[in-house]
Amino acid sequence: MRPTEYPQRGERALVRRIRELLPVARVDGAAVGFGDDMAPIPGAADLLWTADMLMDGVDFDSRQHDWKTIGHKAMAANLSDCAAMGVQPVAALHAVALANDLSVDDVLALTAGIHECGSRFDCPLVGGDTNSWDKPTVVNITVIGRILPDCAPVRRDGAQPGDRVWVSGPVGGSILGRHLTFTPRVELGIRLARELRPHAMMDISDGVAIDLSRILEASEVGATLSAAEVDAATHDDARRLAEQDGHAARDHALHDGEDFELLVVLPPNADDVAHTLGLLPLGEITRELGLWLTDANYERVAIPPRGWEHFT
Amino acid sequence: MRPTEYPQRGERALVRRIRELLPVARVDGAAVGFGDDMAPIPGAADLLWTADMLMDGVDFDSRQHDWKTIGHKAMAANLSDCAAMGVQPVAALHAVALANDLSVDDVLALTAGIHECGSRFDCPLVGGDTNSWDKPTVVNITVIGRILPDCAPVRRDGAQPGDRVWVSGPVGGSILGRHLTFTPRVELGIRLARELRPHAMMDISDGVAIDLSRILEASEVGATLSAAEVDAATHDDARRLAEQDGHAARDHALHDGEDFELLVVLPPNADDVAHTLGLLPLGEITRELGLWLTDANYERVAIPPRGWEHFT
Repeated sequence: MRPTEYPQRGERALVRRIRELLPVARVDGAAVGFGDDMAPIPGAADLLWTADMLMDGVDFDSRQHDWKTIGHKAMAANLSDCAAMGVQPVAALHAVALANDLSVDDVLALTAGIHECGSRFDCPLVGGDTNSWDKPTVVNITVIGRILPDCAPVRRDGAQPGDRVWVSGPVGGSILGRHLTFTPRVELGIRLARELRPHAMMDISDGVAIDLSRILEASEVGATLSAAEVDAATHDDARRLAEQDGHAARDHALHDGEDFELLVVLPPNADDVAHTLGLLPLGEITRELGLWLTDANYERVAIPPRGWEHFT
Repeated sequence: MRPTEYPQRGERALVRRIRELLPVARVDGAAVGFGDDMAPIPGAADLLWTADMLMDGVDFDSRQHDWKTIGHKAMAANLSDCAAMGVQPVAALHAVALANDLSVDDVLALTAGIHECGSRFDCPLVGGDTNSWDKPTVVNITVIGRILPDCAPVRRDGAQPGDRVWVSGPVGGSILGRHLTFTPRVELGIRLARELRPHAMMDISDGVAIDLSRILEASEVGATLSAAEVDAATHDDARRLAEQDGHAARDHALHDGEDFELLVVLPPNADDVAHTLGLLPLGEITRELGLWLTDANYERVAIPPRGWEHFT
């Protein structure tokens, strides 16, 4: 499937149909649109908000992971959405459906993990809804962020031919542990938004290929990634995982989810500053649609927009 | 157990321990406190927010209920929290974990139910997070509300001896259907907050006895309800249910959850207006702690603060 074709099934198709259903959900004068990492709040032009739901057995495994770390991940995933827009998180609300076999200490560890991660980014947990049931635990966090002065939120739809594609750190193999313990790139996202005004930005939650495809689709452009640059931005975890499962490390870099690094599209004159900030180049935005990979011999192959998709 | 004793287990005990864990969660100058129906947002003094999570098999039953009605309930439960504080809802964000066997039409019906209920109260759904898994569906909605001019949010902790306890409509037996289809008392809550400045208010989600006990605990007072008044405020559904299950209709009125009517504590000089607004009297706030019921012979019995509690 080429990324320019709308999928008929799967999460993206569903989200598109939900969007069609909500004609009045557009907020007049909002700085962001439906499909960005955060949503507008009518009448509160300087605030945005985002929600992320984590389910036991899907996003974490309570048989292996401790509840404090699970709480960290739940909060950090939301803070990563703030980072992706370049906004400052200000407060969080949680809602939990706790499996009946959790102890009070488990619940307090979960809450402490949420709150400590948020507090590190000036985003305290200020309230919530506590429920229990005889099914696996579900944790939802909603975070409100503030648009800082001179720091317009970065959307997905501004990528232009000739722009460069960057990533904030090495990617792939997060399942070996980083998907739980990662640090959301809040300061970096704000700094990028303020100093470099990226043409597009998002956090990598579902994988480089599928998340970059979302930027390409929203911006109505394509991209060609360099195999050498992708390899240089491949995390050691991707290589370790490749040794275990026989897949190519590069495929892990392109398609693994939950890196929670920032995918940043910058005009070409920002190269020097991007390098200084530690960003790693991946390739270039093109007028020609589609997502492609070129190797040292200039051979070009299509990258499938494959990654983590719910509701397939 | 007397309501003035802190429970050692159960949802209230857990929430108390969570509160102790979050010392920095207090927002300076906030109009509300931890434990109210909505939470403050640091730096946004005119906004409050609330979250409610609904789980299939606990809060609804997808084998019996259609998805649009389920969506209505999920949104209406949040709007009811806005009503309880007397604030105007402005926008909603949802997050769902969809059971894998849901069809696209089911998901769209759920979304339509959420959005249509919200839109009726000027509270559109502006975004969300869509996930799926092989467990029952979980729906979380977060709603932001605006504090209107001359309409301070009503907390739980201001009930005073001599105040009267009112309810916005007949209660009990909601499980026969009203728990899904109820209309949140948004306009009434705002009107009460603006015109009568209640000393305390909340919505009845877990039951009259347990929810009133929360007001009594927060206000450090007691209450005596009149058996005749409780009987006059007992819903026909409570009587129907009593015929089916052999319990007293009055017990259903006092202990059934999810009426989503407002429990309102007003100074005694507001009696006439309260009647005009259709409120039904239940009894009186007392200096003596505890929750009591008196009958026509002035015999007094303790009402256990029994109702719906998670995590027991």
